Amino acid sequence: PQIPFSPPQLSEGEMLRRSQQFFELLNKRRSVRFISPKPVPREVIDNVIRTAGTSPSGAHTEPWTYVVVADPDMKHKIREIIEEEEEINYRQRMGEKWVNDLKRLRTNWVKEYLDTAPYLILIFKQVFGKLSDGKKKTHYYNEISVSISCGILLAALQNVGLVTVTTTPLNCGPQLRVLLHRPANEKLLLLLPVGYPSENATVPDLNRKKLEDIMVFV
Amino acid sequence: PQIPFSPPQLSEGEMLRRSQQFFELLNKRRSVRFISPKPVPREVIDNVIRTAGTSPSGAHTEPWTYVVVADPDMKHKIREIIEEEEEINYRQRMGEKWVNDLKRLRTNWVKEYLDTAPYLILIFKQVFGKLSDGKKKTHYYNEISVSISCGILLAALQNVGLVTVTTTPLNCGPQLRVLLHRPANEKLLLLLPVGYPSENATVPDLNRKKLEDIMVFV
Ligand SMILES: Cc1cc2nc3c(=O)[nH]c(=O)nc-3n(C[C@H](O)[C@H](O)[C@H](O)COP(=O)(O)O)c2cc1C
Ligand SMILES: Cc1cc2nc3c(=O)[nH]c(=O)nc-3n(C[C@H](O)[C@H](O)[C@H](O)COP(=O)(O)O)c2cc1C
Repeated sequence: PQIPFSPPQLSEGEMLRRSQQFFELLNKRRSVRFISPKPVPREVIDNVIRTAGTSPSGAHTEPWTYVVVADPDMKHKIREIIEEEEEINYRQRMGEKWVNDLKRLRTNWVKEYLDTAPYLILIFKQVFGKLSDGKKKTHYYNEISVSISCGILLAALQNVGLVTVTTTPLNCGPQLRVLLHRPANEKLLLLLPVGYPSENATVPDLNRKKLEDIMVFV
Repeated sequence: PQIPFSPPQLSEGEMLRRSQQFFELLNKRRSVRFISPKPVPREVIDNVIRTAGTSPSGAHTEPWTYVVVADPDMKHKIREIIEEEEEINYRQRMGEKWVNDLKRLRTNWVKEYLDTAPYLILIFKQVFGKLSDGKKKTHYYNEISVSISCGILLAALQNVGLVTVTTTPLNCGPQLRVLLHRPANEKLLLLLPVGYPSENATVPDLNRKKLEDIMVFV
C-alpha cells in the first residue's frame, strides 16, 4: 500500500543557507587516527546507529549489522587480530606500490586507537537474508547499501563532534566474524573506531578536489 | 606532513540533543518516485555535491564524478535508454523472484521522474585514475568510497528538504557513459533524480528495523 508523502518545503533562501552550513560542517570532517579514551555517552552512539539505519537499501533489505564494541578485552583482541594481519599486509602482501601510496598518510600496522577509542563500530553486510520459510533471501546490492548507510553514519558522527577513521581491515573479516559470533551470512565491510580526538591529534595535510573537478553540469 | 587537529568539543547535553535531532531529520527521508518539475536553485545542488566531495575515500583517491543533468533533451534521452533496458529487465532478465520482491514497492519500468525532476545526478565511480606520468593509478575500494559519498549526499539533500530515489540502472551504464561522454575509467554506479516531491506523491508504507535489530552491543 502507498501512503501520501508531503513534507514541508523550505524557502529557497533557507535551502541555500542550510546547504552551505551543512557543507561547512562536513568539510571539517577528517579521518582521525589518534583517539582519546574519554568516555562518550552510550545514548549518542545509539542515536548515530539509529540514523545509519534510516539509509535506503536495495529492495528495502536493510542488510546491515552494526557491532559496537566497548568492552576493553574485546577491543584488545580485535587489535591483536588486526595488527597481526596488517603487519603481514605491509611487509608482504601489498607490494611496494601500495605502501608508497599510503606513506603520505603515515599509516602503518600499529593501531593504538583500537584500544583507546571508547567504541569500535564493526559494520557487517548481510550478503543474504532469511525468509520466514527458512529459504535464502537475496540481498541486492548489499555492499552499496551498507556503504551508503556508513556515509550517513559518518555525517551523524560529524554532527556531534565525534571522530573516526573509516577502515577496511584486509583479511581480518573471517577472524573478527568468529570472534564476535556473527553468523556466516554476515561479512565485515568496515571498522570505525569512535571517540573524541586525542589531545595532540594530528592529521595528514591533504586537500580536497574542487567542485569543478568532481562535478560535470549538462 | 601532519597538521594539528583539535576541533571544538560539544557538551554531552548538546551532543545528545544534536544526535536526536539529526536522527529525526534523516528518519523522515523516503525514496520518492514522483518528482515535481518545480525548479530548484542551482547553487543548492552545487553545495550538495560539494558536501558529497568531503567524503573519505580509500588512500584519498576521491574516485567520484557527479554528472548533473538539467538539460531536458538529455534527460529524455536518459529516460529512453533506461526504460528500454528496464522493460527487458522486468520482462526477461530478472525472473519472477525479483519482480515479486519489488512488487511491494510498486516500481516498474516506467520512470516519469527522469523527465520531470529538475536534475538527474549520475554518480560514476572511477575504477582507476591517472598518475602525472600517464600510468594507471589504483583506486582502492572505489565502489565503497563512492557509495559512502552518496550516503553523505543523501543526508545533504534531506537537510534542505529535497527528495530523490537511489537507483541502480541495471545494464544501462555503458550506454549512459557514452551518451554523457565520460571516459572509460568511469563506470555508472547510481542515478539520483532530484527535486521537490510532486503534489500527490505517495511512498510505499514501509517500516524500518528497530535499533535492537541492527545493533549488537559488546
Ligand atoms: C543500492 C540501492 C539500489 C536501489 N535501486 C532502486 C531502483 O533501481 N529503483 C527504485 O525504485 N528504488 C531503488 N532503491 C530504493 C529502495 O527501494 C529504497 O531505499 C527502499 O525501498 C527503502 O525505502 P526508503 O528509501 O523510502 O526508506 C535502491 C536503493 C539502494 C540503496
Ligand atoms: C573505503 C575506505 C577505506 C579506507 N581504509 C583505510 C584504512 O584501512 N586505514 C586508514 O588509516 N584509513 C583508511 N581510510 C581513510 C582514508 O585514508 C581517508 O579517508 C583519506 O585519506 C582522506 O582523508 P580524510 O578522510 O581525512 O578526508 C579509508 C577510507 C575509505 C573510504
